[in-house]
Amino acid sequence: MPSFKNDVQVRFAHVDAAGIMFYPRYFGLINDLVEDWFAQALDASFRQLHLVERRAVPTAHIEVDFHTPSKLEDQLVFSLFVERLGSSSCTLRIAAHCGAEARLSGKLILVHMDMETGKSQPWPDDLRAAMTQWQGPSSSEASQGDNA
Amino acid sequence: MPSFKNDVQVRFAHVDAAGIMFYPRYFGLINDLVEDWFAQALDASFRQLHLVERRAVPTAHIEVDFHTPSKLEDQLVFSLFVERLGSSSCTLRIAAHCGAEARLSGKLILVHMDMETGKSQPWPDDLRAAMTQWQGPSSSEASQGDNA
Amino acid sequence: MPSFKNDVQVRFAHVDAAGIMFYPRYFGLINDLVEDWFAQALDASFRQLHLVERRAVPTAHIEVDFHTPSKLEDQLVFSLFVERLGSSSCTLRIAAHCGAEARLSGKLILVHMDMETGKSQPWPDDLRAAMTQWQGPSSSEASQGDNA
Amino acid sequence: MPSFKNDVQVRFAHVDAAGIMFYPRYFGLINDLVEDWFAQALDASFRQLHLVERRAVPTAHIEVDFHTPSKLEDQLVFSLFVERLGSSSCTLRIAAHCGAEARLSGKLILVHMDMETGKSQPWPDDLRAAMTQWQGPSSSEASQGDNA
Repeated sequence: MPSFKNDVQVRFAHVDAAGIMFYPRYFGLINDLVEDWFAQALDASFRQLHLVERRAVPTAHIEVDFHTPSKLEDQLVFSLFVERLGSSSCTLRIAAHCGAEARLSGKLILVHMDMETGKSQPWPDDLRAAMTQWQGPSSSEASQGDNA
Repeated sequence: MPSFKNDVQVRFAHVDAAGIMFYPRYFGLINDLVEDWFAQALDASFRQLHLVERRAVPTAHIEVDFHTPSKLEDQLVFSLFVERLGSSSCTLRIAAHCGAEARLSGKLILVHMDMETGKSQPWPDDLRAAMTQWQGPSSSEASQGDNA
Repeated sequence: MPSFKNDVQVRFAHVDAAGIMFYPRYFGLINDLVEDWFAQALDASFRQLHLVERRAVPTAHIEVDFHTPSKLEDQLVFSLFVERLGSSSCTLRIAAHCGAEARLSGKLILVHMDMETGKSQPWPDDLRAAMTQWQGPSSSEASQGDNA
Repeated sequence: MPSFKNDVQVRFAHVDAAGIMFYPRYFGLINDLVEDWFAQALDASFRQLHLVERRAVPTAHIEVDFHTPSKLEDQLVFSLFVERLGSSSCTLRIAAHCGAEARLSGKLILVHMDMETGKSQPWPDDLRAAMTQWQGPSSSEASQGDNA
């Protein structure tokens, strides 16, 4: 199954007074993952998308389970795959591991919109085709269990 | 229904290249809300809890729906109430509004744990009693609709 | 001597693994101070300035001495006054205290520029007049000692 | 001249409403640079230093000139070298470039301290020896011009 991956070391800037990843910072790292996926895998960098073409891909929903704390200098691998591709939305399964140990798993829903009108619009054909390459188990299968 | 509230102005530091709240920063604001609730409403400040008593309240699960973008200088009101109080966990309903307009709604589950052992432990009686004052509709009612 | 002030409590999100303010986050708080000064004291909010009038006030130089660490839940007061007002720049003296104890002191230089051309431009008369109200000791006096 | 380097791409999370690096975030990147220098070049990772040996290297002073704005997806190279090595302090010259273009230059002073006593203490011999390998022009030469 295809899955886009990103390596992240837990930095001093990420941890809290307890020496573990401060959970709000995970969401910045999840956004980095999605940003890298667009730029490296979909040929649609956020600069091109937002600043040139004036389109955006806001997150409409996100849910995350945190399994085990991440500690300073842990080497994490973030990953994502497409769970469902709608006409103007995309549901991504996301996860982060340290070795074999799951640190978080969840999903988020992106919406494709026009920044000028503020309205959603269908994915362009080339972007849709590129996203299709990263599809995991179908959503009907996905609904039966954890696919991260 | 009791609900703990927090005022937040959308700052320059919060917004992205599109001039709207960068969604990962909402999670920092949600943590601020929970931190203020503990300090101001539960008489259990995070300094006392983490640094003196060596207990922690990590977030085990969070889910958020983003309804409408927040713009620079919007005046937001974040709010929370207790949806369910377990022996060592607590489910909070959270929301943020700008005037009457909902910006986000969701929930998160906190777990009470001992930082030395890394294991969950029952809420102390005084903390449990204080949390009970912030309970909203019961979880059976809560499941029938939006209670934020 | 006039001085614009801002109250900030050290939050869980601000501190590092040593339980003290992570110094890069001071710069976000210094920017908040400048943002509040523009909005509350100069009648020139960053939204109006950046998004409506397409002008910016980038920081060209900053220097800070950190005197004593700030701890979780410390109540800080940030302050600024104008040390020198140039035709298109402004040098601000900045400081943060916890009670009588200095936590940081320093200065920063803002430049007024047109976002479209990327070039500096003279302060408008009304903004210049408002800034003049916040001038501290003259720069010749200022060079003889600590004026924060 | 030896110089420790770090590659950083300007991310969506770094930029502000004007589409350029929000300057407070540079200080997080400067801290990342120092953190990597300790771990990769000095064999003294921040985890080992702070959490195991209970020593810290707080920044006592920092000053930065910002030369040209950095834009979304710019590829930056951060660099540092030792300008002066004191008995318990270390002055670092820092810079960031995009290609040949300087984005920032400055310096910072680290102090070596014991986290338990809160007092400065001399650098251990092995750390001092490792830092010496990264010394640039002597401080007398350094004072005559820009050495970044």
